[in-house]
Amino acid sequence: MPDALRSVNPATGTAFGEPIPATDTAARRTEAARAAAPALAAMRPAERASLLRAVAAALTAREDAIVALADAESGLGEARLRGELARTTGQFEQYGAHAETGAPLDIVIDHAAPRTTPPRPDLRRWNVPLGPVAVYAASNFPLGFGVAGTDTAAALAAGCPVVAKAHDSQPATAALLAETVTAAIEQHGADPRAFAVVTGFQAGLDLIRDPAIKAAAFTGSISGGRALAAEAAARPEPIPFFGELGSLNPVVATPEALAQRGGALAEEFATSMTLGSGQFCTKPGLLFLPEGHGLEEALAEAVRAKQVHPMLNRRIREAYLAETAGLAAHPAARSLLEPVPGGEAHAVTPALIAAPAAAIDGDRTLLRECFGPAALVLTYADIAELERVLPQLPGGLTGAVHLATSADPVARAVLPLLAERSGRVIVNGWPTGVAVTHAQHHGGPWPATTNARHTSVGPASIDRFLRPVAYQSTPEALLPEALHEDNPLSLQRRVDGALER
Amino acid sequence: MPDALRSVNPATGTAFGEPIPATDTAARRTEAARAAAPALAAMRPAERASLLRAVAAALTAREDAIVALADAESGLGEARLRGELARTTGQFEQYGAHAETGAPLDIVIDHAAPRTTPPRPDLRRWNVPLGPVAVYAASNFPLGFGVAGTDTAAALAAGCPVVAKAHDSQPATAALLAETVTAAIEQHGADPRAFAVVTGFQAGLDLIRDPAIKAAAFTGSISGGRALAAEAAARPEPIPFFGELGSLNPVVATPEALAQRGGALAEEFATSMTLGSGQFCTKPGLLFLPEGHGLEEALAEAVRAKQVHPMLNRRIREAYLAETAGLAAHPAARSLLEPVPGGEAHAVTPALIAAPAAAIDGDRTLLRECFGPAALVLTYADIAELERVLPQLPGGLTGAVHLATSADPVARAVLPLLAERSGRVIVNGWPTGVAVTHAQHHGGPWPATTNARHTSVGPASIDRFLRPVAYQSTPEALLPEALHEDNPLSLQRRVDGALER
Repeated sequence: MPDALRSVNPATGTAFGEPIPATDTAARRTEAARAAAPALAAMRPAERASLLRAVAAALTAREDAIVALADAESGLGEARLRGELARTTGQFEQYGAHAETGAPLDIVIDHAAPRTTPPRPDLRRWNVPLGPVAVYAASNFPLGFGVAGTDTAAALAAGCPVVAKAHDSQPATAALLAETVTAAIEQHGADPRAFAVVTGFQAGLDLIRDPAIKAAAFTGSISGGRALAAEAAARPEPIPFFGELGSLNPVVATPEALAQRGGALAEEFATSMTLGSGQFCTKPGLLFLPEGHGLEEALAEAVRAKQVHPMLNRRIREAYLAETAGLAAHPAARSLLEPVPGGEAHAVTPALIAAPAAAIDGDRTLLRECFGPAALVLTYADIAELERVLPQLPGGLTGAVHLATSADPVARAVLPLLAERSGRVIVNGWPTGVAVTHAQHHGGPWPATTNARHTSVGPASIDRFLRPVAYQSTPEALLPEALHEDNPLSLQRRVDGALER
Repeated sequence: MPDALRSVNPATGTAFGEPIPATDTAARRTEAARAAAPALAAMRPAERASLLRAVAAALTAREDAIVALADAESGLGEARLRGELARTTGQFEQYGAHAETGAPLDIVIDHAAPRTTPPRPDLRRWNVPLGPVAVYAASNFPLGFGVAGTDTAAALAAGCPVVAKAHDSQPATAALLAETVTAAIEQHGADPRAFAVVTGFQAGLDLIRDPAIKAAAFTGSISGGRALAAEAAARPEPIPFFGELGSLNPVVATPEALAQRGGALAEEFATSMTLGSGQFCTKPGLLFLPEGHGLEEALAEAVRAKQVHPMLNRRIREAYLAETAGLAAHPAARSLLEPVPGGEAHAVTPALIAAPAAAIDGDRTLLRECFGPAALVLTYADIAELERVLPQLPGGLTGAVHLATSADPVARAVLPLLAERSGRVIVNGWPTGVAVTHAQHHGGPWPATTNARHTSVGPASIDRFLRPVAYQSTPEALLPEALHEDNPLSLQRRVDGALER
């Protein structure tokens, strides 16, 4: 019998609530998901949008209970978690609305061309759901990237059932979300087997190996993601694995920007870096400042003044203290702000470490993601040095530059280098805060993600869970309704090479 | 010093021409490709289209020499190879034209929305090239899937340099194609380092492990593809691997179709199955006929009457003879046509094996792809039996059904099952012959491909070699020209959710 999981309050370190048994067999859930797949795949886009709206409404209806439980298990605070839930329900609605337009189906119709050489048959292509998807929940966004977060919304919008693995630190929140989502699906008249949650390490491993699972999405550490990706690739039938792993999110401030608004930058940096106790995948972990910037005091002061929540769990807290100590011990590094290991339970204080940018030239020891409110302040000599070190950074989700004008020579040199190594380039802003819009890209070169083609935030995230099927010379009566000539579902299509609207 | 490769004429089994040394270091070519990448990535879409047209023109200008050499090394015949070259140059032109529309860039612009909660920044996303691509040439289409085939055209259209691994059986053709393409690129005024060819097993392995290589495309066997995919995944920085591996391409004829045109079906099947000596990835390898179909004689006769070319090389010929003998030895199987192993050099004759469809119910021994002019004729009892066995087939590129009317009950049952297990569904046609159009999908569930989301034929194949980058709040002067507000390059875009044309 697998162990039970306990909820632990990060603020006090004490367990609370009933023990939640680890799932002893994931196979029952995956079989159920497989059984639910055909009906979910067969839903019209508008029906699927309606189902996603129903899930959003059910989550909103239980907001108080969900937020209270997520706060008790994560310590992230009520205000932040209310915002996170609203963002998540918005994603369910938005992904459903996008599915309703037909855009993710990518319908392409090429009529027969009997007089070409060789003659071309009628071909109609659309995207179909891959089948049941395993979603591995992250702890740093219990609602946004939890069992009922963006990956689940995207998979359901694609028409794929979801079996989600709860994060060990948030088993009660996961159970409440599971109950809420499953009930909403059932009340909507759909098959509630389209969503389930499993708990425990072994169940998570069983999931990625299960033949009924056809794709997986993961948000977490590089080591965990790499291990699961290897499992996905080693299956008798390999499956796509979409992992969002680690990101340093470099921010470069040019001398001109610093001259213009140095003090404000220090304050903004401190806010962004300590958001969610630095447990954001988009935390600015590297701040590049010109030599002689004179901001050390202001930065340390601004960061020290921020109140940070306790870390999500004991393991993360211990790793944070070890990693920050390791960074500070680097021969080229100096502590501007040392974390104080005391305090209650999982509490920590922020860390700020200074080093010359030359210290990362040919040496990756300082280039480790440190989960928590820690960052490196790297001083650069000139453009040439930035041009040397920025291409050496590991792939990331974001890269930002603060500039005074668009003629700023440092910015002009830096921007293409940031684009080369990341999925989102930001000007005069900070990487935390990921707008959920069509143009958003929350992804990037390895190790930011296992697949740089895909985003895990925004309507485009639906595409991950679909594959094309083309129909050749197929009579209308045998075609899926979405491919009928007169477009009865009013879906976006490309016909004979031209986009319809 | 690595071994030299020799050209061998499949018709005579004798070596000809000068020995071609295996590449002793792939790294020189990948370094050159890396150096060529920025300029290729920076080309405007229209310039890139013009470059691809220049490559197509250069290939056409050397048609006679290319076809003669490819025929000598492959034995596929002049007519077929002239057609294949025309198809390939057409792909260079078509992929370039598609790139020119901007469609592969998938440009999405969301203007700032300062009054939403939270306020949304200006976000502009487009796709950028991944970087140098390794292309592994297949022997069955020396021109279509060779070193300068569809994968190379797609990668160049995406803006990625290509280092192609020549197939061991066609080193001289590969060298001539390399010389032609490189000269065309240089004469066009672009950097000729954007294309190179390596030869030999070790160079192929070095390529997939080379840090300069950012993606790989492969067409070949399941075992070879699986091994390379594992290499791609195990790199310190894993890269996407697009393999097209094996496919059985089942064809189901309904009783009504048989009653209507049984004799014609036998003849058409024989033509499709023996095309290119059965060395097509889309060869119909399984023909499902209703019990008591009475076509055995006609099928054997039609297939026997086809003249087949010698096999591409000795290894393929030996594998063909071993595989067909293995299939025929299955206790449930009967030979309708036994291959005659005699004849010149790599010559073979076709094989046709009959078995009840029940023989593949719960038993995969008959479900092995046999490369060459061999197929299984499987007799089914009724719809229920098809519904039982079709879902057990491995994933494939295609599935076809021959029917009399769209009310045909067998066709109605079969079509969704074929769509479930393949990338292209065909009605009253044969899987060989892959139209190069927007709607085409040449891909499918494992083991048809390593990534069912992608096609290796058609303009959509360009997408494999791109990744998104979003620009947030970036002044126009610092944006790539393609993302400027007034659309100076006249590219397709989605602006604030709506498609422009």
